[in-house]
Amino acid sequence: MKKQVEIRLDAQDRGFHLITDEVMRKLSEAGLTLPEVGMLNLFIKHCSCALSINENYDPSVREDLENIFNTVVPENEPYYTHTLEGPDDMPSHAKSIMAGSSIQIPITNGQLNLGTWQGIYLCEFRNHGGPREIVATVL
Amino acid sequence: MKKQVEIRLDAQDRGFHLITDEVMRKLSEAGLTLPEVGMLNLFIKHCSCALSINENYDPSVREDLENIFNTVVPENEPYYTHTLEGPDDMPSHAKSIMAGSSIQIPITNGQLNLGTWQGIYLCEFRNHGGPREIVATVL
Amino acid sequence: MKKQVEIRLDAQDRGFHLITDEVMRKLSEAGLTLPEVGMLNLFIKHCSCALSINENYDPSVREDLENIFNTVVPENEPYYTHTLEGPDDMPSHAKSIMAGSSIQIPITNGQLNLGTWQGIYLCEFRNHGGPREIVATVL
Repeated sequence: MKKQVEIRLDAQDRGFHLITDEVMRKLSEAGLTLPEVGMLNLFIKHCSCALSINENYDPSVREDLENIFNTVVPENEPYYTHTLEGPDDMPSHAKSIMAGSSIQIPITNGQLNLGTWQGIYLCEFRNHGGPREIVATVL
Repeated sequence: MKKQVEIRLDAQDRGFHLITDEVMRKLSEAGLTLPEVGMLNLFIKHCSCALSINENYDPSVREDLENIFNTVVPENEPYYTHTLEGPDDMPSHAKSIMAGSSIQIPITNGQLNLGTWQGIYLCEFRNHGGPREIVATVL
Repeated sequence: MKKQVEIRLDAQDRGFHLITDEVMRKLSEAGLTLPEVGMLNLFIKHCSCALSINENYDPSVREDLENIFNTVVPENEPYYTHTLEGPDDMPSHAKSIMAGSSIQIPITNGQLNLGTWQGIYLCEFRNHGGPREIVATVL
């Protein structure tokens, strides 16, 4: 009965991605056991992407989110000093703080207790972020 | 001794609302038992509103927060494509990610260990969001 | 075997500060015991600062974050009404909601399981915030 596992998310293009199915499949493959009642914490071990929860249905939400976050934290601002890793790097750090490095999802009757329209998002803020490591812990 | 309950928050107008008393009353009515030491997680099952923690005293903070979030994520941007549910919908999704879908509050001596000036906020980003469902889990 | 302690962070200038070492030292001094596997929750008992996780290496990230957050939520907007405590106060409340009042860090093999480049940040949004109180809870 494992209560903590590490999984690797597939590399994604920059943008907001619905990963509920990928996460649940990989947690199961890694042997994580959900209790009847409790909490699932997903923590992403990187600081230029984020995990979040949002709409699981209309993909236009995810497209608009990408454009909104790019507007809130634009690239190439003249005052940026952390520019060595490319124009997408520094905005990624700020967006990561705004969206957050971990999510908590209640577990009820042995399953994630998400709302009807909720899914798990990988917010990939880098142009080429590569695979992302997640620690999943059941409490 | 219940460690998880679901409660329904009263519908609120769009804006930031102090709901500490409503939450604690409804958790008690639902039979949730706080341990001597632990953590309360509140998770909102919707993706166009959010839970947060902020000042419990001066209502002008909550008024200004509404205006600030409306400025950070304005309505009716020409690049929005997710517009079918009205001009308040797409900004709500972005604000929800920024503010977050759950909060954790430490429990000490059987009570929430909030700072002197802290209270629980429902951040209602929709014009007519209706009642909102929350899962409360004690860890 | 304490599972919850309160610690006081040193006062910091306005800005983003890497406090991983200070936090771990003070948790140890306060007698908090990390389990082999679990979760550390750090909760800040104030609503004009925040805790977050971000890059632990290049200090230019932290400088740029301060400027980005000041741009996203500027001071002295004519529509602010909560102005009695100074021009840095109202923006601090909004930034606090965006960055969040608590962080969760998985514990693996009795240690924080942070990514290679991750550290704990105190986001101090006030000009003179003073020492900040944190509740640390192990789950």
